[in-house]
Amino acid sequence: MKDLARVEALTFDVFGTLTDWRTSIIREGRELGARLDLDADWEGLADAWRAGYSPAMRRVEDGEVPWQTIDSLHRTILDDLLPRYGAGRLSDPDVDLLNRSWHRLDLWPDVPAGLDRLRQYFLVAPLSNGNVSLLVDLSRRADLRWDCILSAELFGHFKPHPEVYRAAATLLGLEPDRVMMVAAHNEDLVAAAGVGFRTAFVYRTSEHGPQQTTDLEPDPAVDIAVRGLDELAARLCSR
Amino acid sequence: MKDLARVEALTFDVFGTLTDWRTSIIREGRELGARLDLDADWEGLADAWRAGYSPAMRRVEDGEVPWQTIDSLHRTILDDLLPRYGAGRLSDPDVDLLNRSWHRLDLWPDVPAGLDRLRQYFLVAPLSNGNVSLLVDLSRRADLRWDCILSAELFGHFKPHPEVYRAAATLLGLEPDRVMMVAAHNEDLVAAAGVGFRTAFVYRTSEHGPQQTTDLEPDPAVDIAVRGLDELAARLCSR
Repeated sequence: MKDLARVEALTFDVFGTLTDWRTSIIREGRELGARLDLDADWEGLADAWRAGYSPAMRRVEDGEVPWQTIDSLHRTILDDLLPRYGAGRLSDPDVDLLNRSWHRLDLWPDVPAGLDRLRQYFLVAPLSNGNVSLLVDLSRRADLRWDCILSAELFGHFKPHPEVYRAAATLLGLEPDRVMMVAAHNEDLVAAAGVGFRTAFVYRTSEHGPQQTTDLEPDPAVDIAVRGLDELAARLCSR
Repeated sequence: MKDLARVEALTFDVFGTLTDWRTSIIREGRELGARLDLDADWEGLADAWRAGYSPAMRRVEDGEVPWQTIDSLHRTILDDLLPRYGAGRLSDPDVDLLNRSWHRLDLWPDVPAGLDRLRQYFLVAPLSNGNVSLLVDLSRRADLRWDCILSAELFGHFKPHPEVYRAAATLLGLEPDRVMMVAAHNEDLVAAAGVGFRTAFVYRTSEHGPQQTTDLEPDPAVDIAVRGLDELAARLCSR
């Protein structure tokens, strides 16, 4: 295992690692459906919406479409999916409201206390493909306290592009080996390690619901693996 | 007076508006001098250091020198000044320590409680020419809680370049007239108003010491003028 004693800052993936996006999006859909008396397939929509996310970012990185925020990509995917999941008759303001569900995601239960404790020992910041205003809204609603907000929007690239991690370390004024990426996704961690970050895998084996098949176990290259931020704090803050 | 009811976010100048940089820098110099038994002119150095700041940023904006952080500009100015103020014999680590005094500035006394109250009603962020790591360090030390850190470093321009204000509003996801710039400097406020921000002038008439001659009164174009963040909160948070 690499030396973790040099780590001064922790950067966190948000969608899936800190937040239970699937339950949150389904909840928001059902609330909207109840208000409009609309019986759509909100579970199917949530999964398909999320499944469209990586390909949409790839189209941006490949230059097929211009740089845009996750809010904008989410909306494009959503517009395409709504009719296929029984929600084609939503008004534009309601589609916008649903699109902004990603600004109102609920946290996994271990996050508030774990992050508070970690913040006593480390600089803490999200490092997310979510745009800044999304991360600000989500953090205010969940009462998360960050030292700064780091977002792909600041760098013009999405994770796992190496420039995102490199530029994040530069803004923090730290060498990459003084920063630890905390994520539930091996792709994110392997990319962060590629520029010299330390890495912590968080098990979130129900992120994609009961049938999840990906990221059930950490990549062998990650530095530590934990069941939640409470365990991460216990591991890192007792040094 | 313009309609302030639409304002959702407050962006704050840091050097002078939230922090008493002059007293802080002199304190840091004296502490260093006491440790090294060095009787330098710390007051003169502090004032000359700050006086070199705007010209240095202008050389960057004019393209005479490449883009760099305030930490870097501060160091260039400091290296030039030290021998002239009786501190030419400092070691490189001590010069670095002194340079990083700007990461350890003390707040004006009205700031902590005023900002806490303002944050209950508004998004709050610094919008400073200080680099991100400087603002993070300063905020952690002073226990300031921000929704995000906005810095010239993110935009590749220094205030009062209009792009800084425009890009800040974009990151916040807000139209410029939903953002209020809070500063003790008319130049900053006039530039912010130029892109559509609302503006609040804070009287800091001893920022430059007892002989201050600038920014003693607000520009007639600013929307409101207050004696401190406590008064700003009283004015804005009772709506």
